[in-house]
Amino acid sequence: MIAEGDLGGACYALAAEIYPLCRSITGNGVRQTLDILARHIPLERVEVPTGTPMFDWTAPREWNIRDAWVKDPSGRKVIDFKASNLHVLNYSVPVHKKVSLAELKEHCFTLPDQPDLIPYRTSYHAERWGFCLSHRALSALPEGTYEVFIDSDLSDGSLTYGEYLHEGQSGREFLLSAHICHPSLANDNCSGLALLTLLARTLRSRKTRYSYRFLFAPGTVGALAWLSANEDRLAIDHGLVVSCVGDSGGPTYKSSRRGDAFIDRAMRHVLEHSGLDPVLLDFSPYGYDERQYCSPGFDLPVGLFQRSAFGTFPEYHTSADNLDFIAPEHLRTSFDIIMKVIEIVEADYTPVNLSPKGEPQLGRRGLYSSIGGDSGGVTSVMPLLWVLNLADGKHTLLDMAERSGMPFGELLRAAQLLREADLLT
Amino acid sequence: MIAEGDLGGACYALAAEIYPLCRSITGNGVRQTLDILARHIPLERVEVPTGTPMFDWTAPREWNIRDAWVKDPSGRKVIDFKASNLHVLNYSVPVHKKVSLAELKEHCFTLPDQPDLIPYRTSYHAERWGFCLSHRALSALPEGTYEVFIDSDLSDGSLTYGEYLHEGQSGREFLLSAHICHPSLANDNCSGLALLTLLARTLRSRKTRYSYRFLFAPGTVGALAWLSANEDRLAIDHGLVVSCVGDSGGPTYKSSRRGDAFIDRAMRHVLEHSGLDPVLLDFSPYGYDERQYCSPGFDLPVGLFQRSAFGTFPEYHTSADNLDFIAPEHLRTSFDIIMKVIEIVEADYTPVNLSPKGEPQLGRRGLYSSIGGDSGGVTSVMPLLWVLNLADGKHTLLDMAERSGMPFGELLRAAQLLREADLLT
Amino acid sequence: MIAEGDLGGACYALAAEIYPLCRSITGNGVRQTLDILARHIPLERVEVPTGTPMFDWTAPREWNIRDAWVKDPSGRKVIDFKASNLHVLNYSVPVHKKVSLAELKEHCFTLPDQPDLIPYRTSYHAERWGFCLSHRALSALPEGTYEVFIDSDLSDGSLTYGEYLHEGQSGREFLLSAHICHPSLANDNCSGLALLTLLARTLRSRKTRYSYRFLFAPGTVGALAWLSANEDRLAIDHGLVVSCVGDSGGPTYKSSRRGDAFIDRAMRHVLEHSGLDPVLLDFSPYGYDERQYCSPGFDLPVGLFQRSAFGTFPEYHTSADNLDFIAPEHLRTSFDIIMKVIEIVEADYTPVNLSPKGEPQLGRRGLYSSIGGDSGGVTSVMPLLWVLNLADGKHTLLDMAERSGMPFGELLRAAQLLREADLLT
Repeated sequence: MIAEGDLGGACYALAAEIYPLCRSITGNGVRQTLDILARHIPLERVEVPTGTPMFDWTAPREWNIRDAWVKDPSGRKVIDFKASNLHVLNYSVPVHKKVSLAELKEHCFTLPDQPDLIPYRTSYHAERWGFCLSHRALSALPEGTYEVFIDSDLSDGSLTYGEYLHEGQSGREFLLSAHICHPSLANDNCSGLALLTLLARTLRSRKTRYSYRFLFAPGTVGALAWLSANEDRLAIDHGLVVSCVGDSGGPTYKSSRRGDAFIDRAMRHVLEHSGLDPVLLDFSPYGYDERQYCSPGFDLPVGLFQRSAFGTFPEYHTSADNLDFIAPEHLRTSFDIIMKVIEIVEADYTPVNLSPKGEPQLGRRGLYSSIGGDSGGVTSVMPLLWVLNLADGKHTLLDMAERSGMPFGELLRAAQLLREADLLT
Repeated sequence: MIAEGDLGGACYALAAEIYPLCRSITGNGVRQTLDILARHIPLERVEVPTGTPMFDWTAPREWNIRDAWVKDPSGRKVIDFKASNLHVLNYSVPVHKKVSLAELKEHCFTLPDQPDLIPYRTSYHAERWGFCLSHRALSALPEGTYEVFIDSDLSDGSLTYGEYLHEGQSGREFLLSAHICHPSLANDNCSGLALLTLLARTLRSRKTRYSYRFLFAPGTVGALAWLSANEDRLAIDHGLVVSCVGDSGGPTYKSSRRGDAFIDRAMRHVLEHSGLDPVLLDFSPYGYDERQYCSPGFDLPVGLFQRSAFGTFPEYHTSADNLDFIAPEHLRTSFDIIMKVIEIVEADYTPVNLSPKGEPQLGRRGLYSSIGGDSGGVTSVMPLLWVLNLADGKHTLLDMAERSGMPFGELLRAAQLLREADLLT
Repeated sequence: MIAEGDLGGACYALAAEIYPLCRSITGNGVRQTLDILARHIPLERVEVPTGTPMFDWTAPREWNIRDAWVKDPSGRKVIDFKASNLHVLNYSVPVHKKVSLAELKEHCFTLPDQPDLIPYRTSYHAERWGFCLSHRALSALPEGTYEVFIDSDLSDGSLTYGEYLHEGQSGREFLLSAHICHPSLANDNCSGLALLTLLARTLRSRKTRYSYRFLFAPGTVGALAWLSANEDRLAIDHGLVVSCVGDSGGPTYKSSRRGDAFIDRAMRHVLEHSGLDPVLLDFSPYGYDERQYCSPGFDLPVGLFQRSAFGTFPEYHTSADNLDFIAPEHLRTSFDIIMKVIEIVEADYTPVNLSPKGEPQLGRRGLYSSIGGDSGGVTSVMPLLWVLNLADGKHTLLDMAERSGMPFGELLRAAQLLREADLLT
């Protein structure tokens, strides 16, 4: 069920296409991003007016920005939004005035320990203006009077998110959610947006048992808006928040609050058999939108899938989280991991052995090597033996995979062979 | 309760006596072996006619062999069944013809990685003929015409197994099962047949709480025949499959499918206190007849006891599994381990402390050193304290042994002392 | 809630004050000790007449000693009770006679492996007399006739223990128990007596939810006497036996018989966050009076708190367990550990998140840094997030502390902040 073709390359290309846009938790950057994603899947766009109540929150004012710069005493632009949208403190109010270097510095954010990188900073909850730049650039600014200019507005409008539902045959639902609120950060949001879009496109051509709901929403407020709008009909059986899936780290899985939900078991199983060196984390209430899905009033079975865990890589929330930091091969590996989890979700069931007393005679059904005494042929028959032994009506295939230590896919194939041989329902 | 005398030597002698016989899953080799075992215990022999249904199987045709050889172009016997019964592919159909070296090789089995050893091979499920020989011998054969001769027959008859029941005082039953289908392989399984025979003889002279059922049956089909014949009155409380108990490896215990059956706990306890370096394995559906006993339709509490685990030693299923590979001392150690498990099965109970409020005064009953302040005397009193503390009607002696980390036997002796002091029921 | 002032110094001073007294399981040494403790707290003294039945025991005869010595052939005192009360075998019957060196030696106890130390020995259950001395001193005694003198009496009287109850607002009760039966051993009993006395004094000035019962009773017989007297109204919710709390070792906690009682969890939590290197032991039925409290007829949730575990330090039960072996700083650390456990017992509750759907907006309540994108501010907000996430009515603060790995105190403070913000009941 793994997707074919240059999926990694297509994913990278899509991430690169949305990378330059200046996203924030609201505004046209989000809408432009959704427009691009909508070329691949029939995305529904939802606009939530400013002030709409969302549990303890209300939808924020909308922020848009057109330009911003700082000119030095000689009139040269020393900070320029057009060169990198990270240069502006996200959600800055408009400003245009002359300031001393000292006053300018009060509005500047740098990373003294990473002096060549521009930090990513926001000020959603306090009205202020500011610039982000490399510490080296700040240190080089001469004394004098600077002209600062931010052409933004922060006013009533709406919060925007995108949603796509691939309907399955059962009434059950799998939520896949990525945040769409970061500007030019390649791993920390472009990677997840691109991967989920192509995953949705892949599933769209398939009949599935589960429905798959894809949500592209700004962090925190977007998830709250969606939860608030759907509170009465929430029926999420499994869910994944997907972020930072384009780098070479991890893979990392942080369990849902429940810790032993099916999605937790399936993700752990896939990662343990990935041939990689996975990082398996218990739930904690800090991170991405699993914080909202796993709040105690919902307690949904939603985990977080990443490559490097957020906050643990030096490029995190800096200008170094750029298109060089992610790669097609890593996106492809991440894609395949999620597809394997979907395979488990789709295919898991509780088979029943129709010949449960003793082992059935595999030899006469062509399922066993006919020369005995040689243990070489055992490997291929082990999945058959495990399925037969545990198919007592109390074990699903995932249970069997966990107990046997064998990959789910091998047990699934064994179960299919046994069904063809009328040994299993 | 450990048996006295040169048990190891007697066990080795019996294994050596049955070693030369050409056993298979049916035929006179099995009957001759049972005749020898029956000199020690009153063994009941059961004959199951070819074609008798046994769940998904039917009893196979009977195979007997009288002679077999290959003569080289000069007329010299280069392979001779009389030199080693491993030389014939077990269940070979009769043949007598001249063949080229090339054709002969299509019917030969060797071990290129162990060029001096003869492999053990069978062909129960496909009608064919063949020879097994060392790779070195095969490589030395010159071109030319060979005469092959196998004087065997494969025809309706019966499958044979032996059974002995030592009746105990309660209606509860302990099954001990060894396979009797391998030709000249000393560890796999002359060792198990000899050990269980002498164990049965030892128990025969004792009054026991449990009944002990000994089964000497060909692998797979023998167990299925027995299960099929006894399906309506199966009441196995504990069980052990015993094989490969004569070498210096392990000891190894593979748990029953249940994993926490009493036999699993008792075996683990004995092995952990054996002073050896035990290998404790979870259940897996490959191995000896625990596969049948633990199939989901029965799910009996039957584990597998071995020294080296099957398939893990280089002598396994080769001519190197001979009488040099097993030794009296290892057979004796294996015997003692099973006897200690039987001691637990026989002696375990749930004692109740008759003085449960505070510790009873051990000193005035002579159960405690009278000089206090010195911790030297503690060791001897610890089993008494553990039994008293846990004798709340919810713990058996085995529970106490597990929790305290003390050997079962010490707690049993402590319980006896406490009963004599009227402190325990 | 940690006590202020030079608590460690006061504790050491009190331990030093009671150190010289010759305590035993009965007698005036116990009464004199209780008199000193009673200067700090209104201690109730209980006298249990000799012969009073106490479950399997009866209250023993009372032992008092005034003087004891051994004079060598030259009339010089070579062993003198007045120099160290350890010199007399505790519970020695009176004697005054001349003996040969050989006969004297039959009555002497030494430590050949620690030749400079006097051992502590008792003979509660057999009527005998004896002396304890250093092996070096014994070895230096010349041949000749010795005069031995023990001015003691062993006769009907009573067993004495002290009790103090600090009454709390709920009907629930926490038992704190120390043994008062050892003579001049500083860690092994003076430390616990002093610490619990000052702890009682500290609690006395506070309103508490729980009642705190302090018991100063001779080992084994004192606990049995108390249990026997209070059997019908035993309602111990949590309990600690406290001994050997003045040295630099451990800290050590041995769980109650239940293993997962609240006191076990609270002690483990405090020790794991102590910054020390704690030793966490499972219950075993040997030790101090937890043996009686945890006997199966009571099975009270009482654990044992120590620094070095008894029997594991070379000074144990010797003259090296003196005032140099304990120190104010260690007593203070031990005191603080118990106070932190009491803080948990007092403060633990099951908060309920009043805004459980999604995270409440901490920013507008001043509970969150207003500049986002920087993970530096996360640490301070984590306790808030954990409490909000787990406050579903099913988790107490201690549950949250265990799951989050954060100290109880931080979660308690977070819960207080959230209550002030009307986010939590």
